[in-house]
Parts: sequence; structure tokens; C-alpha cells
Amino acid sequence: MKERSIPKETIDRLPLYLRCLEKIIDEGDVNISSGNFSEKLNLNSAQVRKDLSYFGDFGTRGVGYKTETLAKQIRSILHLDKKWDMALAGAGNIGSALLTYNGFDEGDFEVKVAFDKDPDLVGKEINGVKIEAADSMEKVIRDENIKLGIITVPADAAQEVADQMVEAGVEGVLNFAPTLLNLPKEIQLAQVDITKELEQLVYYL
Amino acid sequence: MKERSIPKETIDRLPLYLRCLEKIIDEGDVNISSGNFSEKLNLNSAQVRKDLSYFGDFGTRGVGYKTETLAKQIRSILHLDKKWDMALAGAGNIGSALLTYNGFDEGDFEVKVAFDKDPDLVGKEINGVKIEAADSMEKVIRDENIKLGIITVPADAAQEVADQMVEAGVEGVLNFAPTLLNLPKEIQLAQVDITKELEQLVYYL
Repeated sequence: MKERSIPKETIDRLPLYLRCLEKIIDEGDVNISSGNFSEKLNLNSAQVRKDLSYFGDFGTRGVGYKTETLAKQIRSILHLDKKWDMALAGAGNIGSALLTYNGFDEGDFEVKVAFDKDPDLVGKEINGVKIEAADSMEKVIRDENIKLGIITVPADAAQEVADQMVEAGVEGVLNFAPTLLNLPKEIQLAQVDITKELEQLVYYL
Repeated sequence: MKERSIPKETIDRLPLYLRCLEKIIDEGDVNISSGNFSEKLNLNSAQVRKDLSYFGDFGTRGVGYKTETLAKQIRSILHLDKKWDMALAGAGNIGSALLTYNGFDEGDFEVKVAFDKDPDLVGKEINGVKIEAADSMEKVIRDENIKLGIITVPADAAQEVADQMVEAGVEGVLNFAPTLLNLPKEIQLAQVDITKELEQLVYYL
């Protein structure tokens, strides 16, 4: 299932293509030309054609891309043809914002269970997701066969929580804690670091 | 002030270097060897040396880097030697989580004012930040001379809000709305797209 020869930059752009296509489909367009599609994406059209060529020839000369077909293909490439259950560790500010985040509701990702070590939070529900005790995390993740973890604990607890998730069978981690995690190479790690984004922005101001 | 010849990839790594250095300084280390520093960063040491060489020669053979000096230099390079005021549009889930996010409190970034169009939210305070009416945004941003904007409104309102921010003098935008913004070239734009991060992760699973 892993098309290893596809450049990471291409994979990184596919979610944007999908987002843009879904908008085009919502607007009722059945086809889109390569040029129009690139323009909506703010990308160079040669780049877009090259990216999509890694996955076969979806476009037709003079007609462009069939929006539904292309969206379906990209979803399949990104492994979004199944629903992904997630476990979230840390039901503080960022954690509870994610639990109430509407973007997950209708989508391909669902927080199945959340964990916190604060006894006042354990047993509560946020947006239909139950908060369980932190020390039950490994067992629950294993029992529910959850492969994706979200870390929203404070920075100094993040490594330990990540290690526990991996021990329990998690294969992909999305980390919101502002710290560098050290995980086995085979574990996929993504970091959302708000301060880092701001620091990169203001360099150019 | 803009070192245009420095690769974007280098600039993108500087916040990580700074984060790592601050941790080392907290642990009481005055010097760190290039090898140890690279190891803590999980990066190749040739890469780290090359990145830092763009800004002058901070290291001393046999001693390594002076942690305080290097951190100060990186802060200056990233324009973090001043405090940045920010305006936040949209005090819903993600917006209010950011307002209560502790990472900003002690840092270089401060949300000065927030805006929402919901009359029930206007006039309230979250973590000491007052929520103002959406239609006062342009005037307030201009009066307070705010250069950084955070967008946490729904996707279909994001472009309009971004345009208003730019009109009012904002030069850098951090967008949390899951939509592609179309802004003038001279405006710096960063996107935090949680679903995109997850989509990129699961491709590799």
C-alpha cells in the first residue's frame, strides 16, 4: 500500500487538492480544467499535473479532470476510504477544543476516546466523547485497536504519553505539545506547533 | 532585515533549534557540542552546522556552542527581540482554546484583542482578552497598529475576514480555518490544518 517513490512534497499537497475538489464539487462542477484547478490552488499547473501523474492519468485533454472521480482517487490514495478512530490524551484547553471541533464530526477521523489524569475530568463527556483515566490508556487503545493518537498534554508529559501510545499499538501520532518527540522510525509523527508557525511568520515581517 | 538568500527550510528549522536550546538552558548547560545538539534535535549534524553557518560562526571548535548566545542570536534572527501583538477573529472553540493557551502567556506573542460576530460573546473576556464586535475589527487593528492576525472563524467566512485584516494593516496571518486563502503576495500566510496533518499521517500507515 506504500507508494514509496512518490515525493513527500506531493503527498503533502494531496490533502489540499482534495479540499479544493470538494469545494468545486459542492459548487456543482462536474469537470475542471487543469488550468482552472491550478489557479484555485494557487499552484503552478505543471506542478499539479506532475503531482497527479504519479497516480495515473486522471485528466482528459480538452475536458480536464472529472471532479468526483479525482476526489475519490485521492481519497483512496490517502487511505481515507475507511474511518480512522483516534485516541486523545489530555483534555485541557487544546484537547477539549479538538473534541468540540466540528471538522472531525462529518469527516474521516473520529476521536473515539479521550484520557486525562485529572480526576475531576475523568468520567465526563465532551461532545459525546468519554474521558477515561490516564492509567487505563494503554489497555483501552489496545482493546479498541486504535492506530492514531493525538497528544494535547503539557510538554513535559508528552514523551511519556507518546511512548505509552506506541506501546499500545498506535502507529501515527499528532502532537500538539511544544516539544520534540523521540519515537521509533516506523511511527509516523506530525507536529502542530502554533508558536513555531508564528515564529516562522514574523521572520519575514 | 530580510536575509533573502537563506533557504526557507533553514528558517523553518530555527524555531526548533530555539525550542531545543531553551530546554538545554533550563537544564543548566552553558555549552553544547554540535554533535550533542544535533542528536537532541534528531537531525544530521552537517545539516545543523550548515543552517547555523548562514548567520555567522557561533560555534567554537572543541567547546561547541554557547547556549545562551546562540539562543539570543536565533531570537534576533527570527525577530523575536520584540513582543508581537495579535488580533484573533472568531472566539468559538478553537479561538477560545487559543485565548486560554498558556504557550502565549510568557512568550513573544500576545493576543491583544479578539473579535466575534456573536452578540452573546461580544463584551466578554477570555483569559483577560476582551471580545469586541466583528464590525469594529478594522478600526481596532488599525488603531492598535497590530501586524499579526489569527483566523479561527468558519471556513466560509475566512477569506472575508482575512481581506479585512489585510486592509487594516495586518502583514502576517495564521489561518486555522480549513480553506485556502487568497492574499496579496507580500502578506505572509501560515496555515494550521489539523485534518490535513491527519490525512498526511495516515497515508503512511
